[in-house]
Amino acid sequence: MAKFFLEISMSLDGFVAGPNITLEQPLGEGGEQLHEWVLPLASWRGPHGLEGGETGPDDDLMRETLARAGAVVMGRHMFSGGEGPWADDPNADAWWGDDPPFHSPVFVLTHHEREPVVKRGGTTFHFVTDGIQSALEQARAAAGDQDVQLSGGASVAQQYLGAGLLDELNIHVAPVLLGGGVSLFGQLGTDAPGLKLTRVVESPAVTHLRYEVANGR
Amino acid sequence: MAKFFLEISMSLDGFVAGPNITLEQPLGEGGEQLHEWVLPLASWRGPHGLEGGETGPDDDLMRETLARAGAVVMGRHMFSGGEGPWADDPNADAWWGDDPPFHSPVFVLTHHEREPVVKRGGTTFHFVTDGIQSALEQARAAAGDQDVQLSGGASVAQQYLGAGLLDELNIHVAPVLLGGGVSLFGQLGTDAPGLKLTRVVESPAVTHLRYEVANGR
Repeated sequence: MAKFFLEISMSLDGFVAGPNITLEQPLGEGGEQLHEWVLPLASWRGPHGLEGGETGPDDDLMRETLARAGAVVMGRHMFSGGEGPWADDPNADAWWGDDPPFHSPVFVLTHHEREPVVKRGGTTFHFVTDGIQSALEQARAAAGDQDVQLSGGASVAQQYLGAGLLDELNIHVAPVLLGGGVSLFGQLGTDAPGLKLTRVVESPAVTHLRYEVANGR
Repeated sequence: MAKFFLEISMSLDGFVAGPNITLEQPLGEGGEQLHEWVLPLASWRGPHGLEGGETGPDDDLMRETLARAGAVVMGRHMFSGGEGPWADDPNADAWWGDDPPFHSPVFVLTHHEREPVVKRGGTTFHFVTDGIQSALEQARAAAGDQDVQLSGGASVAQQYLGAGLLDELNIHVAPVLLGGGVSLFGQLGTDAPGLKLTRVVESPAVTHLRYEVANGR
Protein backbone atom coordinates (compact mmCIF):
# COMPACT_ATOMS: atom_id res chain seq x y z
CA MET A 1 0.00 0.00 0.00
CA ALA A 2 1.18 3.51 -0.74
CA LYS A 3 2.76 5.31 2.20
CA PHE A 4 1.91 8.55 3.96
CA PHE A 5 5.20 10.20 4.81
CA LEU A 6 6.25 13.37 6.60
CA GLU A 7 8.98 15.41 4.96
CA ILE A 8 10.28 18.31 7.06
CA SER A 9 13.43 20.18 8.11
CA MET A 10 14.06 20.56 11.84
CA SER A 11 16.74 22.30 13.91
CA LEU A 12 18.80 20.24 16.35
CA ASP A 13 16.74 21.80 19.13
CA GLY A 14 13.54 20.55 17.52
CA PHE A 15 12.04 23.60 15.83
CA VAL A 16 10.57 23.83 12.30
CA ALA A 17 10.37 27.63 12.44
CA GLY A 18 12.06 30.24 14.61
CA PRO A 19 10.43 32.70 17.01
CA ASN A 20 8.43 35.78 15.92
CA ILE A 21 6.78 34.58 12.71
CA THR A 22 5.39 37.33 10.46
CA LEU A 23 4.19 37.52 6.83
CA GLU A 24 7.54 39.01 5.90
CA GLN A 25 9.39 36.34 7.88
CA PRO A 26 7.22 33.20 7.54
CA LEU A 27 9.87 30.92 9.05
CA GLY A 28 10.51 33.17 12.03
CA GLU A 29 13.87 34.51 13.17
CA GLY A 30 16.67 32.36 11.82
CA GLY A 31 14.21 29.84 10.34
CA GLU A 32 15.59 30.24 6.82
CA GLN A 33 18.68 28.35 8.03
CA LEU A 34 16.57 25.18 8.18
CA HIS A 35 16.26 25.16 4.39
CA GLU A 36 19.73 26.32 3.40
CA TRP A 37 20.54 22.75 2.39
CA VAL A 38 17.72 22.78 -0.18
CA LEU A 39 18.28 26.01 -2.06
CA PRO A 40 21.55 25.13 -3.88
CA LEU A 41 20.24 21.77 -5.15
CA ALA A 42 19.70 21.15 -8.86
CA SER A 43 16.47 19.30 -8.00
CA TRP A 44 15.12 22.38 -6.21
CA ARG A 45 16.31 24.92 -8.78
CA GLY A 46 14.78 23.04 -11.73
CA PRO A 47 11.13 23.10 -10.54
CA HIS A 48 11.63 26.76 -9.55
CA GLY A 49 12.71 27.66 -13.10
CA LEU A 50 16.41 28.05 -12.30
CA GLU A 51 19.29 26.37 -14.11
CA GLY A 52 22.21 24.41 -12.68
CA GLY A 53 22.71 23.60 -9.02
CA GLU A 54 24.44 21.05 -6.84
CA THR A 55 24.20 17.31 -7.19
CA GLY A 56 25.15 14.72 -4.56
CA PRO A 57 23.37 12.88 -1.73
CA ASP A 58 21.09 15.79 -0.76
CA ASP A 59 20.06 16.24 -4.38
CA ASP A 60 19.48 12.51 -4.90
CA LEU A 61 17.26 12.45 -1.86
CA MET A 62 15.24 15.46 -3.01
CA ARG A 63 14.69 13.88 -6.42
CA GLU A 64 13.55 10.66 -4.77
CA THR A 65 11.01 12.58 -2.69
CA LEU A 66 9.66 14.53 -5.66
CA ALA A 67 9.28 11.28 -7.62
CA ARG A 68 7.44 9.32 -4.97
CA ALA A 69 4.88 11.94 -3.95
CA GLY A 70 1.67 11.65 -5.96
CA ALA A 71 -0.12 14.16 -3.74
CA VAL A 72 0.68 16.52 -0.88
CA VAL A 73 -1.12 17.37 2.37
CA MET A 74 -0.36 20.56 4.30
CA GLY A 75 -1.86 22.79 6.96
CA ARG A 76 -3.41 26.20 6.36
CA HIS A 77 -0.57 27.93 8.13
CA MET A 78 2.01 26.39 5.85
CA PHE A 79 -0.10 27.34 2.83
CA SER A 80 -0.58 31.02 3.56
CA GLY A 81 0.58 31.81 7.09
CA GLY A 82 -2.94 33.06 7.74
CA GLU A 83 -6.06 31.96 9.58
CA GLY A 84 -9.76 32.77 9.56
CA PRO A 85 -11.86 33.55 6.45
CA TRP A 86 -9.99 33.55 3.14
CA ALA A 87 -11.24 37.01 2.23
CA ASP A 88 -9.30 38.39 5.19
CA ASP A 89 -6.07 36.50 4.44
CA PRO A 90 -3.51 38.85 2.86
CA ASN A 91 -1.55 35.83 1.60
CA ALA A 92 -4.52 33.77 0.36
CA ASP A 93 -2.67 33.05 -2.90
CA ALA A 94 0.11 31.37 -0.86
CA TRP A 95 3.88 31.72 -1.13
CA TRP A 96 4.62 30.09 -4.45
CA GLY A 97 3.22 32.30 -7.21
CA ASP A 98 1.81 30.92 -10.48
CA ASP A 99 4.06 27.86 -10.78
CA PRO A 100 4.35 26.16 -7.39
CA PRO A 101 7.03 23.46 -6.99
CA PHE A 102 4.62 20.63 -6.11
CA HIS A 103 3.47 19.54 -9.60
CA SER A 104 0.74 17.43 -8.02
CA PRO A 105 -2.57 17.89 -6.17
CA VAL A 106 -2.12 19.61 -2.80
CA PHE A 107 -4.74 19.18 -0.07
CA VAL A 108 -4.80 22.12 2.35
CA LEU A 109 -6.41 21.62 5.77
CA THR A 110 -8.58 24.59 6.72
CA HIS A 111 -11.73 25.49 8.63
CA HIS A 112 -12.90 27.73 5.76
CA GLU A 113 -14.38 26.42 2.50
CA ARG A 114 -12.88 27.49 -0.79
CA GLU A 115 -13.02 26.39 -4.44
CA PRO A 116 -9.91 24.61 -5.78
CA VAL A 117 -7.15 26.81 -7.19
CA VAL A 118 -5.47 25.54 -10.35
CA LYS A 119 -1.87 26.62 -10.89
CA ARG A 120 0.59 25.91 -13.68
CA GLY A 121 2.71 22.77 -13.85
CA GLY A 122 0.18 20.34 -12.40
CA THR A 123 -0.34 21.89 -8.99
CA THR A 124 -3.96 22.23 -7.90
CA PHE A 125 -4.75 23.34 -4.36
CA HIS A 126 -7.80 21.63 -2.86
CA PHE A 127 -9.21 22.94 0.42
CA VAL A 128 -10.40 20.35 2.90
CA THR A 129 -12.69 21.38 5.74
CA ASP A 130 -13.76 18.01 7.12
CA GLY A 131 -10.64 16.96 8.95
CA ILE A 132 -7.30 15.23 8.67
CA GLN A 133 -8.68 11.77 7.86
CA SER A 134 -10.67 13.15 4.92
CA ALA A 135 -7.68 15.11 3.61
CA LEU A 136 -5.58 11.95 3.68
CA GLU A 137 -8.28 9.91 1.95
CA GLN A 138 -8.65 12.50 -0.80
CA ALA A 139 -4.88 12.72 -1.23
CA ARG A 140 -4.56 8.92 -1.39
CA ALA A 141 -7.25 8.78 -4.07
CA ALA A 142 -5.49 11.49 -6.08
CA ALA A 143 -2.07 9.85 -5.70
CA GLY A 144 -3.16 6.44 -6.97
CA ASP A 145 -0.24 4.03 -6.55
CA GLN A 146 2.11 6.78 -5.47
CA ASP A 147 2.86 7.86 -1.92
CA VAL A 148 1.34 10.88 -0.18
CA GLN A 149 3.61 13.54 1.32
CA LEU A 150 2.82 15.51 4.46
CA SER A 151 4.71 18.80 4.23
CA GLY A 152 3.78 20.28 7.60
CA GLY A 153 3.52 22.27 9.63
CA ALA A 154 4.08 21.04 13.14
CA SER A 155 0.48 21.15 14.32
CA VAL A 156 -0.77 19.02 11.43
CA ALA A 157 2.15 16.60 11.82
CA GLN A 158 1.31 16.14 15.50
CA GLN A 159 -2.36 15.55 14.67
CA TYR A 160 -1.55 12.84 12.12
CA LEU A 161 1.07 11.25 14.42
CA GLY A 162 -1.34 11.21 17.34
CA ALA A 163 -4.06 9.68 15.16
CA GLY A 164 -1.74 6.86 14.06
CA LEU A 165 -2.03 7.79 10.38
CA LEU A 166 1.59 8.54 9.44
CA ASP A 167 3.69 5.66 8.11
CA GLU A 168 7.09 7.28 7.86
CA LEU A 169 9.02 10.31 9.12
CA ASN A 170 11.73 11.95 7.04
CA ILE A 171 13.39 14.48 9.30
CA HIS A 172 16.14 16.65 7.87
CA VAL A 173 18.15 17.78 10.89
CA ALA A 174 19.79 21.11 10.08
CA PRO A 175 22.99 21.89 12.03
CA VAL A 176 21.50 24.87 13.80
CA LEU A 177 20.03 25.80 17.19
CA LEU A 178 17.12 28.20 16.67
CA GLY A 179 16.72 28.82 20.40
CA GLY A 180 12.92 28.82 20.22
CA GLY A 181 9.99 28.86 17.82
CA VAL A 182 7.60 26.19 16.57
CA SER A 183 8.41 22.76 18.03
CA LEU A 184 7.93 19.93 15.52
CA PHE A 185 6.81 17.31 18.00
CA GLY A 186 5.71 19.48 20.93
CA GLN A 187 4.41 17.35 23.78
CA LEU A 188 2.79 14.34 22.12
CA GLY A 189 2.28 12.68 25.48
CA THR A 190 0.96 9.16 25.43
CA ASP A 191 -0.02 9.58 21.77
CA ALA A 192 3.67 9.24 20.81
CA PRO A 193 4.06 6.16 18.61
CA GLY A 194 7.08 3.84 18.45
CA LEU A 195 9.75 4.41 15.81
CA LYS A 196 12.24 2.31 13.91
CA LEU A 197 15.26 3.99 12.32
CA THR A 198 15.41 2.77 8.72
CA ARG A 199 17.83 5.12 6.94
CA VAL A 200 20.47 7.77 7.57
CA VAL A 201 21.82 9.91 4.73
CA GLU A 202 24.49 12.40 5.66
CA SER A 203 26.06 15.44 4.10
CA PRO A 204 27.91 18.38 5.66
CA ALA A 205 24.77 20.52 5.30
CA VAL A 206 22.14 18.32 6.95
CA THR A 207 21.43 14.85 8.36
CA HIS A 208 18.50 12.99 6.80
CA LEU A 209 16.84 10.59 9.24
CA ARG A 210 14.10 8.21 8.15
CA TYR A 211 11.89 6.40 10.65
CA GLU A 212 9.14 3.87 10.18
CA VAL A 213 6.24 4.62 12.51
CA ALA A 214 4.92 1.68 14.54
CA ASN A 215 1.25 2.53 14.74
CA GLY A 216 0.36 -0.86 16.10
CA ARG A 217 -2.70 -1.15 13.93
CA MET B 1 43.83 22.89 23.63
CA ALA B 2 41.82 20.12 25.19
CA LYS B 3 38.13 20.18 24.35
CA PHE B 4 35.04 20.43 26.54
CA PHE B 5 32.43 18.16 24.99
CA LEU B 6 28.83 17.25 25.74
CA GLU B 7 27.94 13.58 25.55
CA ILE B 8 24.23 12.82 25.87
CA SER B 9 21.40 10.66 24.49
CA MET B 10 18.29 12.48 23.24
CA SER B 11 14.95 11.33 21.85
CA LEU B 12 13.92 12.47 18.36
CA ASP B 13 11.52 14.89 20.05
CA GLY B 14 14.39 16.43 22.02
CA PHE B 15 14.08 14.97 25.51
CA VAL B 16 16.88 13.56 27.70
CA ALA B 17 14.41 12.12 30.23
CA GLY B 18 10.72 11.30 30.06
CA PRO B 19 7.90 12.79 32.11
CA ASN B 20 7.28 12.03 35.82
CA ILE B 21 10.83 11.57 37.16
CA THR B 22 11.09 9.82 40.52
CA LEU B 23 13.89 8.20 42.55
CA GLU B 24 12.65 4.82 41.36
CA GLN B 25 12.42 6.07 37.78
CA PRO B 26 15.28 8.59 37.43
CA LEU B 27 14.91 8.86 33.64
CA GLY B 28 11.15 9.36 33.78
CA GLU B 29 8.53 7.36 31.91
CA GLY B 30 10.09 5.68 28.90
CA GLY B 31 13.43 7.38 29.47
CA GLU B 32 15.31 4.10 29.72
CA GLN B 33 14.77 3.72 25.96
CA LEU B 34 17.28 6.53 25.41
CA HIS B 35 20.09 4.35 26.69
CA GLU B 36 19.09 1.00 25.22
CA TRP B 37 21.85 1.37 22.63
CA VAL B 38 24.47 1.53 25.38
CA LEU B 39 23.63 -1.44 27.58
CA PRO B 40 24.56 -4.29 25.18
CA LEU B 41 27.98 -2.81 24.33
CA ALA B 42 31.19 -4.57 25.38
CA SER B 43 32.66 -1.17 26.27
CA TRP B 44 29.81 -0.50 28.69
CA ARG B 45 29.69 -3.99 30.16
CA GLY B 46 33.41 -4.10 30.92
CA PRO B 47 33.57 -1.04 33.23
CA HIS B 48 30.38 -2.31 34.91
CA GLY B 49 32.04 -5.64 35.74
CA LEU B 50 30.17 -7.65 33.09
CA GLU B 51 31.72 -9.91 30.47
CA GLY B 52 31.13 -10.03 26.71
CA GLY B 53 28.90 -7.66 24.80
CA GLU B 54 28.46 -6.26 21.32
CA THR B 55 31.16 -4.69 19.21
CA GLY B 56 30.67 -2.46 16.16
CA PRO B 57 30.29 1.27 15.47
CA ASP B 58 28.40 2.06 18.69
CA ASP B 59 31.01 0.22 20.73
CA ASP B 60 33.93 1.88 18.93
CA LEU B 61 32.40 5.26 19.62
CA MET B 62 31.88 4.48 23.30
CA ARG B 63 35.51 3.36 23.65
CA GLU B 64 36.70 6.54 21.98
CA THR B 65 34.69 8.65 24.43
CA LEU B 66 35.96 6.76 27.47
CA ALA B 67 39.54 7.17 26.23
CA ARG B 68 39.39 10.90 25.57
CA ALA B 69 37.72 12.03 28.80
CA GLY B 70 40.26 12.91 31.48
CA ALA B 71 37.58 14.36 33.74
CA VAL B 72 33.80 14.66 33.85
CA VAL B 73 31.44 17.50 34.79
CA MET B 74 27.81 16.86 35.73
CA GLY B 75 24.90 18.54 37.47
CA ARG B 76 23.60 17.66 40.92
CA HIS B 77 20.43 16.23 39.49
CA MET B 78 22.31 13.80 37.30
CA PHE B 79 24.48 12.79 40.27
CA SER B 80 21.73 11.97 42.76
CA GLY B 81 18.38 13.14 41.44
CA GLY B 82 18.11 15.24 44.60
CA GLU B 83 18.38 18.86 45.62
CA GLY B 84 18.92 20.86 48.80
CA PRO B 85 21.25 19.88 51.68
CA TRP B 86 23.10 16.57 51.22
CA ALA B 87 21.93 15.28 54.62
CA ASP B 88 18.37 15.34 53.26
CA ASP B 89 19.19 13.63 49.95
CA PRO B 90 18.10 9.97 50.05
CA ASN B 91 20.38 9.25 47.07
CA ALA B 92 23.42 11.24 48.24
CA ASP B 93 25.72 8.31 47.38
CA ALA B 94 24.53 8.56 43.73
CA TRP B 95 23.43 5.85 41.32
CA TRP B 96 26.62 3.96 40.66
CA GLY B 97 27.59 2.13 43.89
CA ASP B 98 31.22 1.58 44.93
CA ASP B 99 32.74 1.26 41.46
CA PRO B 100 31.31 3.97 39.18
CA PRO B 101 31.97 3.70 35.44
CA PHE B 102 33.82 7.04 35.12
CA HIS B 103 37.34 6.02 36.22
CA SER B 104 38.32 9.68 36.38
CA PRO B 105 37.64 12.75 38.54
CA VAL B 106 34.00 13.86 38.37
CA PHE B 107 33.05 17.46 39.21
CA VAL B 108 29.48 17.77 40.45
CA LEU B 109 27.79 21.17 40.32
CA THR B 110 25.85 21.86 43.52
CA HIS B 111 24.79 24.70 45.81
CA HIS B 112 25.76 22.63 48.88
CA GLU B 113 29.33 22.07 50.03
CA ARG B 114 30.62 18.57 50.57
CA GLU B 115 33.97 16.81 51.00
CA PRO B 116 35.18 14.75 48.01
CA VAL B 117 34.00 11.13 47.84
CA VAL B 118 36.59 8.60 46.71
CA LYS B 119 35.29 5.50 44.96
CA ARG B 120 37.02 2.47 43.52
CA GLY B 121 38.56 2.38 40.05
CA GLY B 122 39.79 5.98 39.88
CA THR B 123 36.48 7.80 40.29
CA THR B 124 36.52 10.65 42.81
CA PHE B 125 33.49 12.91 43.09
CA HIS B 126 34.36 16.57 43.77
CA PHE B 127 31.59 18.98 44.68
CA VAL B 128 31.80 22.44 43.18
CA THR B 129 29.74 25.28 44.69
CA ASP B 130 31.21 28.32 42.94
CA GLY B 131 29.68 27.94 39.50
CA ILE B 132 30.02 26.38 36.07
CA GLN B 133 33.20 28.24 35.10
CA SER B 134 34.99 27.04 38.23
CA ALA B 135 33.84 23.44 37.68
CA LEU B 136 35.20 23.54 34.14
CA GLU B 137 38.51 25.03 35.27
CA GLN B 138 38.94 22.38 37.97
CA ALA B 139 38.03 19.63 35.52
CA ARG B 140 40.47 20.96 32.91
CA ALA B 141 43.24 21.04 35.53
CA ALA B 142 42.46 17.45 36.55
CA ALA B 143 42.26 16.23 32.93
CA GLY B 144 45.66 17.59 31.91
CA ASP B 145 46.06 17.09 28.17
CA GLN B 146 42.86 15.07 27.93
CA ASP B 147 39.42 16.39 27.07
CA VAL B 148 36.68 17.13 29.60
CA GLN B 149 33.27 15.50 29.25
CA LEU B 150 29.99 17.13 30.17
CA SER B 151 27.54 14.36 30.98
CA GLY B 152 24.42 16.44 31.64
CA GLY B 153 21.79 17.06 32.54
CA ALA B 154 19.89 19.46 30.34
CA SER B 155 19.99 22.45 32.68
CA VAL B 156 23.78 22.32 33.04
CA ALA B 157 24.22 21.77 29.29
CA GLN B 158 22.08 24.85 28.56
CA GLN B 159 24.09 26.92 31.04
CA TYR B 160 27.41 25.95 29.45
CA LEU B 161 26.05 26.46 25.92
CA GLY B 162 24.67 29.88 26.80
CA ALA B 163 27.98 30.89 28.39
CA GLY B 164 29.89 29.93 25.24
CA LEU B 165 32.02 27.37 27.06
CA LEU B 166 31.19 24.14 25.22
CA ASP B 167 33.39 23.20 22.25
CA GLU B 168 31.57 20.17 20.91
CA LEU B 169 28.20 18.42 21.10
CA ASN B 170 27.88 14.65 20.78
CA ILE B 171 24.17 13.93 20.55
CA HIS B 172 23.04 10.33 20.37
CA VAL B 173 19.58 10.49 18.80
CA ALA B 174 17.59 7.48 19.96
CA PRO B 175 14.79 6.32 17.62
CA VAL B 176 12.04 7.11 20.10
CA LEU B 177 9.43 9.80 20.78
CA LEU B 178 9.11 10.29 24.55
CA GLY B 179 6.15 12.67 24.18
CA GLY B 180 7.35 14.97 26.97
CA GLY B 181 9.89 15.27 29.76
CA VAL B 182 13.16 17.15 30.13
CA SER B 183 14.06 19.07 26.97
CA LEU B 184 17.80 19.01 26.22
CA PHE B 185 18.01 22.44 24.63
CA GLY B 186 14.85 24.05 26.00
CA GLN B 187 14.51 27.63 24.77
CA LEU B 188 18.08 28.90 24.48
CA GLY B 189 16.86 32.11 22.85
CA THR B 190 19.53 34.45 21.56
CA ASP B 191 22.16 32.54 23.57
CA ALA B 192 22.00 29.75 20.98
CA PRO B 193 25.43 29.41 19.35
CA GLY B 194 26.17 28.40 15.76
CA LEU B 195 26.94 24.78 14.94
CA LYS B 196 28.95 22.90 12.35
CA LEU B 197 28.17 19.24 11.69
CA THR B 198 31.48 17.39 11.83
CA ARG B 199 30.58 13.69 12.08
CA VAL B 200 27.69 11.26 11.69
CA VAL B 201 27.99 7.66 12.88
CA GLU B 202 24.98 5.47 12.30
CA SER B 203 23.71 2.15 13.54
CA PRO B 204 20.20 0.69 13.65
CA ALA B 205 19.99 1.52 17.36
CA VAL B 206 20.96 5.19 17.39
CA THR B 207 22.34 8.06 15.29
CA HIS B 208 25.47 9.74 16.66
CA LEU B 209 25.73 13.39 15.63
CA ARG B 210 28.81 15.48 16.39
CA TYR B 211 28.78 19.27 16.11
CA GLU B 212 31.51 21.83 16.61
CA VAL B 213 30.16 24.83 18.51
CA ALA B 214 30.96 28.24 17.01
CA ASN B 215 31.29 30.32 20.13
CA GLY B 216 32.73 33.26 18.23
CA ARG B 217 35.28 33.99 20.90
